[in-house]
Amino acid sequence: MEKIQTKGYGASGSLIGGKTLELMSFERDQPKDDEVLIEVLYCGVCHSDLHQVNNDWKNTIYPCVPGHEIIGKVTAIGAAVSRFQKGDIVGVGCMIDSCKTCAPCKEGEEQFCEGPHGQTMTYNGYWKPDPAFNTFGGYATNLVAQEKFVMNIPTDLDIKSAAPILCAGVTTYSPLKHFGVTSGHKVGIIGIGGLGHIAIKIAKAMGASVTAITTKEEKRSAAIELGADEVIVSENKDEMERAAAKFDFLLATIPYAFDVNDYVPLLRRRGAFVTVGLLGPYKQATNNMEVAKLSTTIGGSLIGGTIETQEVLDFCAKHGISPEVQMINIEEINDAFDQVKNEEVRFRYVIDMTTLKNA
Amino acid sequence: MEKIQTKGYGASGSLIGGKTLELMSFERDQPKDDEVLIEVLYCGVCHSDLHQVNNDWKNTIYPCVPGHEIIGKVTAIGAAVSRFQKGDIVGVGCMIDSCKTCAPCKEGEEQFCEGPHGQTMTYNGYWKPDPAFNTFGGYATNLVAQEKFVMNIPTDLDIKSAAPILCAGVTTYSPLKHFGVTSGHKVGIIGIGGLGHIAIKIAKAMGASVTAITTKEEKRSAAIELGADEVIVSENKDEMERAAAKFDFLLATIPYAFDVNDYVPLLRRRGAFVTVGLLGPYKQATNNMEVAKLSTTIGGSLIGGTIETQEVLDFCAKHGISPEVQMINIEEINDAFDQVKNEEVRFRYVIDMTTLKNA
Repeated sequence: MEKIQTKGYGASGSLIGGKTLELMSFERDQPKDDEVLIEVLYCGVCHSDLHQVNNDWKNTIYPCVPGHEIIGKVTAIGAAVSRFQKGDIVGVGCMIDSCKTCAPCKEGEEQFCEGPHGQTMTYNGYWKPDPAFNTFGGYATNLVAQEKFVMNIPTDLDIKSAAPILCAGVTTYSPLKHFGVTSGHKVGIIGIGGLGHIAIKIAKAMGASVTAITTKEEKRSAAIELGADEVIVSENKDEMERAAAKFDFLLATIPYAFDVNDYVPLLRRRGAFVTVGLLGPYKQATNNMEVAKLSTTIGGSLIGGTIETQEVLDFCAKHGISPEVQMINIEEINDAFDQVKNEEVRFRYVIDMTTLKNA
Repeated sequence: MEKIQTKGYGASGSLIGGKTLELMSFERDQPKDDEVLIEVLYCGVCHSDLHQVNNDWKNTIYPCVPGHEIIGKVTAIGAAVSRFQKGDIVGVGCMIDSCKTCAPCKEGEEQFCEGPHGQTMTYNGYWKPDPAFNTFGGYATNLVAQEKFVMNIPTDLDIKSAAPILCAGVTTYSPLKHFGVTSGHKVGIIGIGGLGHIAIKIAKAMGASVTAITTKEEKRSAAIELGADEVIVSENKDEMERAAAKFDFLLATIPYAFDVNDYVPLLRRRGAFVTVGLLGPYKQATNNMEVAKLSTTIGGSLIGGTIETQEVLDFCAKHGISPEVQMINIEEINDAFDQVKNEEVRFRYVIDMTTLKNA
């Protein structure tokens, strides 16, 4: 069967080595019986895209076409697909397939797939014996995904701003939900960027009293506008001390190594701290005395599975939550990456992918 | 009212500075209306006793009379005491009083007392405005404790070996219970000493499959005798790798700084690791990548409150659990401390306190 001709924006090597994302052409296989072909309409720009393109995790295969916050339109379905039909508006997040038979997959937690190859990531998702096999993400005119990994986009969601829910949304929703955040809880969101700003909105909609914790004095008013009840500037020692032992739950979205000991004293007894932004070691060894004193925990979390991804889309639709996005054309992606790198982006870029069609 | 004349064994300064525990005399106040006077029959030797006497935590007031694993007999009760009468066999653990009005106290979690002075520890429990006020522990002929902090000793418990349940028992029972350890769970107990050997018995009685994890090849058979289903020697890399992602819950009782990253890979998805032995920083910064990968948590816990202390005593009685103890005379305490320091003690020393009466 004829291959699908695809245009994408990808990197042939690390940007650190001087490369930029460039227009490229490649082919995708036609959707199998249980797969869906999607025309990509919008794609969010995640900090991970930059890490992966730069080979920060030492596992990038080039060329690398990033993008895992995808809103699109179904243009073809495999013979066994039952949940979708042509023309449906759908979403795809960080994964496009998994073994679907192990315990985590059966429980909709495919991020923990225990199959022979694990889950297939939306991009840089190589694993096949064929060394040429790799996956290319949503910075492209189209995408193919297994039906289970294709999300229904509720009609109440604004499709221009919904893309970041597919990664940033579920990444923050999952730990907030697992803790059982609800009214009466005091929740702190540490780091107010792409992940943190959505976390504020989600935690607020869950009924919690929400404090934004930021290193930047200038984010104070923005955090209040996002719905935070209070703001703490973490470099202000008085503010931090006044907040000691006040928080039931803290979610850290800081994307670089930080000292977890700065935040542990903010937890109340049996409170929990979860880090979602950091994919490496903390800056300092944790002082267990401070953790044990109030029987707290320090956890980590990565993305979420298909059940929680659909849940957070429905949750955002129900509660009128939209990520704060700045729409760009595909040609602006290299400038956008520079802004992400320099932490100058206000929340989240989304690429209008119709601009790639005509590129 | 006349003071109570008490004989004790205490230190006038750090043993590191060359001091030893010595016979000393002091006075206690008569029990108040809500207090109980207890003749001490047996007292466990906890690693904390050594830390406190050596001023390892920089908060010791000398003279220091340690001991917080106390089995005794009621010899007098205050006018308002209703739960006990003269002649009752009772236990006292790490605390003898607290504010009793804050939320944690009302919930029986007095280890988190939020009152003006916090809880009163059984020894080195100074806090009063009077700088001369301090508390002296169970290495003494008698002890006074507030009624709520006096535990009922079930008749099924062997009183000669029960003392360690008051600290080592509740310290390990509390995190096992909070995780909800039950049949079907795979639990690892790291460090097989005073805390760890009781933890094996408790986790086993909760229905879990229990693995003892030790640095010492020579503890393998002892761990099996204690009831462990399996043993892993942590320096054996093959054994550790085979155990990857297998454990629902890990309890670390190692009493010195260790690298938590050695154990995180043993946790399965959404598993939990709790450290009870270490009152300071880990040896290395935690790698959050490994924690986040399977959405695990790393927590800490200290002792337990009155409700859980009574619970663990009743639990041990019901399940026929006795700590492994070696009975010593009070004159042997300095040798025993040396053995504890050198990790040469087999599980737990208990002092036969009748030997102090005649000292």
